[in-house]
Amino acid sequence: MSGTPAPFTADDYRARMERAARSAAEAGLSGLLVAPGPDLVYLTGYQPVATERLTFLVLAEGRDPVLVVPTLEAPDAAHAAGAPALTLRDWTDGQDPYAVTAPLLDGKGRFGVSDNAWAMHLLGLQRQLPDTSYVALTEALPMLRAVKDARELERLAAAGAAADEAYDEILKVRFAGRRESDVAADLASLLLRFGHSQVDFTVVGSGPNGANPHHEAGDRTIERGDMIVLDFGGLKHGYGSDTSRTVHVGEPSDEEQHVHNVVRAAQQAGCDAVRPGATCQDVDRAARKVIASAGYGEYFIHRTGHGIGVTTHEPPYMIEGEEQPLVPGMCFSVEPGIYLPGRFGVRIEDIVTVTESGGRRFNNTPRELAIVD
Amino acid sequence: MSGTPAPFTADDYRARMERAARSAAEAGLSGLLVAPGPDLVYLTGYQPVATERLTFLVLAEGRDPVLVVPTLEAPDAAHAAGAPALTLRDWTDGQDPYAVTAPLLDGKGRFGVSDNAWAMHLLGLQRQLPDTSYVALTEALPMLRAVKDARELERLAAAGAAADEAYDEILKVRFAGRRESDVAADLASLLLRFGHSQVDFTVVGSGPNGANPHHEAGDRTIERGDMIVLDFGGLKHGYGSDTSRTVHVGEPSDEEQHVHNVVRAAQQAGCDAVRPGATCQDVDRAARKVIASAGYGEYFIHRTGHGIGVTTHEPPYMIEGEEQPLVPGMCFSVEPGIYLPGRFGVRIEDIVTVTESGGRRFNNTPRELAIVD
Repeated sequence: MSGTPAPFTADDYRARMERAARSAAEAGLSGLLVAPGPDLVYLTGYQPVATERLTFLVLAEGRDPVLVVPTLEAPDAAHAAGAPALTLRDWTDGQDPYAVTAPLLDGKGRFGVSDNAWAMHLLGLQRQLPDTSYVALTEALPMLRAVKDARELERLAAAGAAADEAYDEILKVRFAGRRESDVAADLASLLLRFGHSQVDFTVVGSGPNGANPHHEAGDRTIERGDMIVLDFGGLKHGYGSDTSRTVHVGEPSDEEQHVHNVVRAAQQAGCDAVRPGATCQDVDRAARKVIASAGYGEYFIHRTGHGIGVTTHEPPYMIEGEEQPLVPGMCFSVEPGIYLPGRFGVRIEDIVTVTESGGRRFNNTPRELAIVD
Repeated sequence: MSGTPAPFTADDYRARMERAARSAAEAGLSGLLVAPGPDLVYLTGYQPVATERLTFLVLAEGRDPVLVVPTLEAPDAAHAAGAPALTLRDWTDGQDPYAVTAPLLDGKGRFGVSDNAWAMHLLGLQRQLPDTSYVALTEALPMLRAVKDARELERLAAAGAAADEAYDEILKVRFAGRRESDVAADLASLLLRFGHSQVDFTVVGSGPNGANPHHEAGDRTIERGDMIVLDFGGLKHGYGSDTSRTVHVGEPSDEEQHVHNVVRAAQQAGCDAVRPGATCQDVDRAARKVIASAGYGEYFIHRTGHGIGVTTHEPPYMIEGEEQPLVPGMCFSVEPGIYLPGRFGVRIEDIVTVTESGGRRFNNTPRELAIVD
């Protein structure tokens, strides 16, 4: 129903960069070094194809943002939506990019650096400025992208709704006798049809493959009697979707139905634990407790959830030991599962956002075990 | 004509890992930390989807290779072709992956680390083992993947031939009146048709867009009278293609033809400079000299070439200052260009391999300025 949301403007990116620089200062950092990837997209709208050539956005409170870019890529960078809010500093092949970047940094400073910055570039800066020190951006400022504003929430809701439409449609296709990869291709095609620009993953884990939570989709032919974990997502209008449902080809056994019921109850408990002031680990504990109480604790072998935004996996993480309090505007998955090695797996996943009054799901398709053909 | 080449075996990967560990020791390193990406593909055949979770292959001479992987991804890692030649060491969500990795490393050692390893993981290791030091793998062992064996050359030749087939076909399509992105889609489709599994780039730089060497393809409608830089490549059977030709819609002006002639002569001079014992910068100088002599030196704004293998951009680089001698089996692009801002650009590129007797091209389509419709 809804159309394309209004694009973020240079003013939007300027505000994000100012907030990031301020947060860095509050965290005791001299500044931030932002590499191509989700941090840079979030802060500038610029998304270069990552190459071995150094690109860094340098942010420090009270100074204008500077984007260091290879000369070859400067024209593209100049066209980014956030470009009017920053200064470009280009370097050419043959120049030392670390020598070009160093004058922008406090030579005795401590900097946050994007998690996914290349180690090569970090080593180059450490060598060029031996008295500087660095910390991973996610560790220094885990909340940098975690709290979404209204326009980001709108995009995440739209991505979730599109994923839900894809799930509704996939229930109508034939499963038995087709390969997992065929169903995965259907899912990818549906995500694109419902407005995604990018498909990040389309897991189809049938029968024993469902017991491997990181199985994607393979050559296995789906059979009658299979449990099938479906887990799919990508980006729509620059923001992520990620949802899982487990379906069954024909009628399930009592055990299969029971395991599914346990996971469904755990997923509900995880969602129910979402409210401002609860911690990330509270969500994990709430879901895990249901599964452990049912005797399946050892078969829930991953964290309960992860944040989502301009990527489909980012902080905050719903995991034991993560004491970060939940804040309205945070968005993350709640996705407990049970994996019985060599037999089958069950996972149920929704994206949930924190509101003043509790959690609100962006995925709203039925969570009952669907029977497919 | 040729079919699928025989896959690399665990023995092939074992030999590569042994050679890498030996090279590291010879370079004075305690070992190598290999991150997901081309280094890991080359050494193990394992290509996980990169996530925030730590994966490192630890290589040290005289010790068995160990692959540290998230538990979730261990089943996939165990299926990699190189898995029988290494030991898996998995870590679960909630564990500290740096504490799991540290016992595998000499706590006072110096290690080569993949260029593209995440800065977050390097920082984690630096903190866990404060007496270790690190150097980028490309800097420490620039030749690690640079010299291709016969089976790699076979794959690169096949990828080049497929790119040539794509070029032959693209000359038959309509250019005038269509958008750059339409022609780019044609190129992508042709690369896939001729056996590529992955398309990395399809540059269609028409008219003034051709003067930006990193322009990809946009909404501009191609017009009669346009020069058009085409630069496309990807992976076939795991090895790369990358070729450029510049075409013209209708008859060129004298100036356009002249600039094209200069670039063609420069590209020929670069290829002619390829022989064992010459250096990388000799190739750059040979091509650059032709362009400078013609008065266009300031408009050749990038290096002359880059290596190719399991990626489409890797060492060695054909650039001033790179004194690495050429060795039979090396493969790289020779791709000079002239870029006249706001007007047009010309680039001609072939992949060339070093043989005992000189350079041999893997791209062999005509380099004359082709006239298209």
